[in-house]
Amino acid sequence: MLRYLTAGESHGSSLVGILEGMPAGIAVNTGLIDKELARRQQGYGRSARMKIESDKVAILSGVRSAVTTGGPIALQIINKDSSIDTLPKVQCPRPGHADLSGAIKYQTGDVRNILERASARETAMRVAIGALCKSLLTVFEIKIISHVVSIGGIEAHTCSLSPGEITELSETSPLRCADRAAEKLMMEEIDNMKEAKDTLGGIFEVITSGVPVGLGSHVQFDRKLDARLAAAVISIQAIKAVEFGMGCEVAKKTGSQVHDEIYYSQEKGFFRQTNRSGGIEGGISTGEDIVLRGYMKPIATLGKPLKSVHIETKEGAEATIERYDICAVPAAGVVAEAVCAFEIANALCEKFGADSLREMKSNFDGYRTLVRDF
Amino acid sequence: MLRYLTAGESHGSSLVGILEGMPAGIAVNTGLIDKELARRQQGYGRSARMKIESDKVAILSGVRSAVTTGGPIALQIINKDSSIDTLPKVQCPRPGHADLSGAIKYQTGDVRNILERASARETAMRVAIGALCKSLLTVFEIKIISHVVSIGGIEAHTCSLSPGEITELSETSPLRCADRAAEKLMMEEIDNMKEAKDTLGGIFEVITSGVPVGLGSHVQFDRKLDARLAAAVISIQAIKAVEFGMGCEVAKKTGSQVHDEIYYSQEKGFFRQTNRSGGIEGGISTGEDIVLRGYMKPIATLGKPLKSVHIETKEGAEATIERYDICAVPAAGVVAEAVCAFEIANALCEKFGADSLREMKSNFDGYRTLVRDF
Amino acid sequence: MLRYLTAGESHGSSLVGILEGMPAGIAVNTGLIDKELARRQQGYGRSARMKIESDKVAILSGVRSAVTTGGPIALQIINKDSSIDTLPKVQCPRPGHADLSGAIKYQTGDVRNILERASARETAMRVAIGALCKSLLTVFEIKIISHVVSIGGIEAHTCSLSPGEITELSETSPLRCADRAAEKLMMEEIDNMKEAKDTLGGIFEVITSGVPVGLGSHVQFDRKLDARLAAAVISIQAIKAVEFGMGCEVAKKTGSQVHDEIYYSQEKGFFRQTNRSGGIEGGISTGEDIVLRGYMKPIATLGKPLKSVHIETKEGAEATIERYDICAVPAAGVVAEAVCAFEIANALCEKFGADSLREMKSNFDGYRTLVRDF
Amino acid sequence: MLRYLTAGESHGSSLVGILEGMPAGIAVNTGLIDKELARRQQGYGRSARMKIESDKVAILSGVRSAVTTGGPIALQIINKDSSIDTLPKVQCPRPGHADLSGAIKYQTGDVRNILERASARETAMRVAIGALCKSLLTVFEIKIISHVVSIGGIEAHTCSLSPGEITELSETSPLRCADRAAEKLMMEEIDNMKEAKDTLGGIFEVITSGVPVGLGSHVQFDRKLDARLAAAVISIQAIKAVEFGMGCEVAKKTGSQVHDEIYYSQEKGFFRQTNRSGGIEGGISTGEDIVLRGYMKPIATLGKPLKSVHIETKEGAEATIERYDICAVPAAGVVAEAVCAFEIANALCEKFGADSLREMKSNFDGYRTLVRDF
Repeated sequence: MLRYLTAGESHGSSLVGILEGMPAGIAVNTGLIDKELARRQQGYGRSARMKIESDKVAILSGVRSAVTTGGPIALQIINKDSSIDTLPKVQCPRPGHADLSGAIKYQTGDVRNILERASARETAMRVAIGALCKSLLTVFEIKIISHVVSIGGIEAHTCSLSPGEITELSETSPLRCADRAAEKLMMEEIDNMKEAKDTLGGIFEVITSGVPVGLGSHVQFDRKLDARLAAAVISIQAIKAVEFGMGCEVAKKTGSQVHDEIYYSQEKGFFRQTNRSGGIEGGISTGEDIVLRGYMKPIATLGKPLKSVHIETKEGAEATIERYDICAVPAAGVVAEAVCAFEIANALCEKFGADSLREMKSNFDGYRTLVRDF
Repeated sequence: MLRYLTAGESHGSSLVGILEGMPAGIAVNTGLIDKELARRQQGYGRSARMKIESDKVAILSGVRSAVTTGGPIALQIINKDSSIDTLPKVQCPRPGHADLSGAIKYQTGDVRNILERASARETAMRVAIGALCKSLLTVFEIKIISHVVSIGGIEAHTCSLSPGEITELSETSPLRCADRAAEKLMMEEIDNMKEAKDTLGGIFEVITSGVPVGLGSHVQFDRKLDARLAAAVISIQAIKAVEFGMGCEVAKKTGSQVHDEIYYSQEKGFFRQTNRSGGIEGGISTGEDIVLRGYMKPIATLGKPLKSVHIETKEGAEATIERYDICAVPAAGVVAEAVCAFEIANALCEKFGADSLREMKSNFDGYRTLVRDF
Repeated sequence: MLRYLTAGESHGSSLVGILEGMPAGIAVNTGLIDKELARRQQGYGRSARMKIESDKVAILSGVRSAVTTGGPIALQIINKDSSIDTLPKVQCPRPGHADLSGAIKYQTGDVRNILERASARETAMRVAIGALCKSLLTVFEIKIISHVVSIGGIEAHTCSLSPGEITELSETSPLRCADRAAEKLMMEEIDNMKEAKDTLGGIFEVITSGVPVGLGSHVQFDRKLDARLAAAVISIQAIKAVEFGMGCEVAKKTGSQVHDEIYYSQEKGFFRQTNRSGGIEGGISTGEDIVLRGYMKPIATLGKPLKSVHIETKEGAEATIERYDICAVPAAGVVAEAVCAFEIANALCEKFGADSLREMKSNFDGYRTLVRDF
Repeated sequence: MLRYLTAGESHGSSLVGILEGMPAGIAVNTGLIDKELARRQQGYGRSARMKIESDKVAILSGVRSAVTTGGPIALQIINKDSSIDTLPKVQCPRPGHADLSGAIKYQTGDVRNILERASARETAMRVAIGALCKSLLTVFEIKIISHVVSIGGIEAHTCSLSPGEITELSETSPLRCADRAAEKLMMEEIDNMKEAKDTLGGIFEVITSGVPVGLGSHVQFDRKLDARLAAAVISIQAIKAVEFGMGCEVAKKTGSQVHDEIYYSQEKGFFRQTNRSGGIEGGISTGEDIVLRGYMKPIATLGKPLKSVHIETKEGAEATIERYDICAVPAAGVVAEAVCAFEIANALCEKFGADSLREMKSNFDGYRTLVRDF
């Protein structure tokens, strides 16, 4: 079983994470983790701070000579701005954030104690942990990508593209969007919002390919792979909905339009011609691509602040402006890749054991034979 | 901490559940549980089997003289049809079910070993467990309702209705729908589908009112209340998407249209005039109604069977017809109430301790004072 | 990951358990479970009630045609005496039981609400669950036995016996003791205590043989195999100490007397000539027999009652006499086998995956090759 | 719920820990943590390295202006010697360590990958985490102490001493032993062993006072307070046995000699005149001192190395000498305080909620009233 905890505040000294349960023998490349961190920091519509961050990870344990030992892996990302102790008190909670509920729950008169941890800054560590998980998945030829499919109501058209094409186009796009025409409109809309001191939400898609049939299980509610992925994606800041495969559309369709008929061929074994299920049926991976989408609300800190109340005086006030992105959907997609990478890696470790990569690979190959001969 | 496990097959002798961690001193009324079980069994568009079931729960432990003792509560629902051992082998997996992936994962040549457990029959036990959780929530004046907001693309219009009105209308509706005009159209569409031997999906909404501010937490990904609720709802059979508050719509809006501004008055304390967040910000309950919606795909077993493959001969075949509902969205809503009841009850027990109801109430009241005086 | 929950009271309608995570394909023999239940009920020095119990298990789910399906396995043991609702209130808590602390914790005026669940009657279900785990272990040629090594200070001498000999002798002993001479003295001591209306404790030993090297892990405190086994054994009613291998004696010895030197031979691979560690080093199984001992206190209900206080009147009183065994060490050993069987089975499932027995065996064999070639 | 993970190797860059779930509002004093770290490093019979270590903790998150925020607390202890990458390969596993089993499990040809993590160096982080937990316990006037009661078979006589006296004497003793006469003999024995290049084990006792009645629970095996404490203590390196209260002695006594009769007085409420149970009955704290003892084996690395086998050549060899303490029982006692502090704090958070200290205290006080009025 893989598990992880993260710690750290937005303006604290550093972000820290511990990932427990990784098999021994995985090659770890700090550069690859930093590359994921950089992917998270990009995106048209981000604030200036993104540039000063330029996160670098340090691996403090669990890896020796660039290979995992089986021990827990501690990661650290030093914050460039670690001014938390000198930053001013915050007393006008921002609508749409954990600010007010958090302050009441934890009984603090300084909302900074809440927002410093609730901030999406924390997701940098999740991306680093996800990058480690990707190192494991890569060995098994499992690949996770994300791209932006909608911003501010403008939709990208990518149905005709393969995951490979999507990757190529989105990785070179300032909005991580594979539809150049839509991208242009989205950027204009972001510029408009910047002008209007408002913010924009959108939709990202995560596609995981190469997942073997049989991860997750139908036997108990908390072992369903889609339930775990849903929790992971909703746990990302600002995500208000998640859908799998055909997603929300299923509610409008008939059964004959929704399910993926089953075929068999000598070379492919069992397969589908469609993947409306998004690669999961009954809480179990089908072997097709796992496709999910997250719906992100517009950033809750606006240049034109929303109404709030001063928590001490109880008088009406403008919400504090802590930070200022116009749109962070591309970054959210990268974070979603990471949390999905963890869940898939966890399911993989559960199914194939996770002591040494050598043993895990042997088990994986054995299962592949069982699947082929089924 | 509350936890539960369920067991049992669709045509096995019985369904069994154990709910652990309930405080001592809660009045338990078997009749109320049975009423919830009956709510789950109703709904226009269900198969004939629903009638023969008419589930009754037996409480086997943890309750004495109709009051919880603090011990684990074992529940049992006897299946009317317990023919599992004599039922025929199933070898043509049904698209849209756990059938094929489950059979490969568990290496069985008889898909019945999978479908008997994967069946939504299992949700009867979750409803019973949720009913127990509701008994706890009721003490704290927390109320959970559900209603159908869409079937087959036909939408109910309920924006102008209060939760009370919705309850009244949906509880007397054969489709658990609070919009009589929409309901009529939905029933017609169900009749059409019956004719066409096809099936229909839809959307249900769950509204939890009376939740105190401060359940869940922003501090760690797996403690976010919305993440837990999302997992719970997605774990229900056939649910392909879940959304909170304004949900998917947030992706199209600007920040000024999405967030709930903060107000304060002497008698209400902090409050909102809108509830677009669906009662959760930063993974923490705001004190407003928790509103979520689940998107259900059409039932995967069709009267007009989908294409499949015989798992032994590998020849093309029609999918097995195991059972036959046209639409089960109303039931799914009732199940969703149950799984949400568990998650809210769990968060409540975590925050207020869960040894005895007396102590829990005292802690709850103490917190209410802290909130009021914040 | 295996997990289980139990439920049920001593005089409730039944005991219930759910075991989750067992691989599909294990042959299950109800007779073998009942045999384990019978082993738990025997033992010189038990009360008359033991005879009326004669427990039989019913498997309610997860097993079809006597083979596990991978689904959760629900077990039930019907209580012969299910008079809980008519049994008198208990208000004089018994020293040495959960009675008083439990009543305060759960705020009940009737100690019966506590003692009915705290009773060792509950261990019948744990024995049933352990019996299922043994069915799994048997496939991998892992064997768990127990025997009584001391009662009332009288020690059995079994150092010269092999596990096979111990089994043979203890299974035919009314005290589950492999030393016939000691057994005789123990029985006399039990007779004396019966006369004196007092009770006796003792020590049992559990030996698990056939465990592969490499279960458990040193990498995190809660993954150490001995830590898990210790918790399991201490969780058995009346156990006040647990030791591994040389156990308490290690505190008096020097390093050169305590550690097991390492040898290698072509046919055995790495091996030890001694097993003072009890088969676990650094929280990991060494491949030698896992040997642990539990120290059981004398039964807390005495024929000659201890001093107590009436919880309502607060006046001095004799402790309630709820039930009356003189000595239950043999039974505790059987329960310990069961809880150890669960922990070993869990570690095995963690290491080798637990979807189907076929896959698990293949993984196990693959690992054996890795070990042999190490 | 409190939880924690640790990471880090003996000669890695640092030890890292994350403690999750601590309530907001606890005053944290880094000096107090360092004092605990220093207590762990002392003890007659330790190697020279102990001096160079002189651990200092850095708090990286979760604490602001010396007060907890409710966020996860990341701790770091920089290793003075972080030469892990240049240290030589280890191929002669040391008997009594995780070395051999770990290397096979994780399939590594360099035992250093195992021993660096398995080393008791890791317990420094557990002591730091325990120190944080003690900060919480202090607020509730719960105090945890430890002392050495036996080394190399020499027993300290401390029955007549109060916890206060034990603390005073042991805190000023180079062996953390409260019996000056025994201490002298123990030191002589340590000197002898140093001469003989051998090592010594012993016994420590942990006493927790001020624990309210009602922590832990009898209702499920894994909620018993003694089971959790047993796992925690056995998880400490080199501990081979754990006992509660009268401990192993119970096996030789009669019921009338073992159980603690119950009394009541107006000012004390329910109380005991003896505490043979060690403060836990039925898995629940009784309100009396929680007393447990851990039995530590002699350090497994001997100056006069034990027999081993070179894992590559398979030829007989002397075990590697990695490090060299003669006796570490005093340190083990300090570590045991820490792991017990975590378990007690966790049980406390479970019972009283753990959002803010203010709320927790209010709940605690309310419960005290319930207990008093019971």
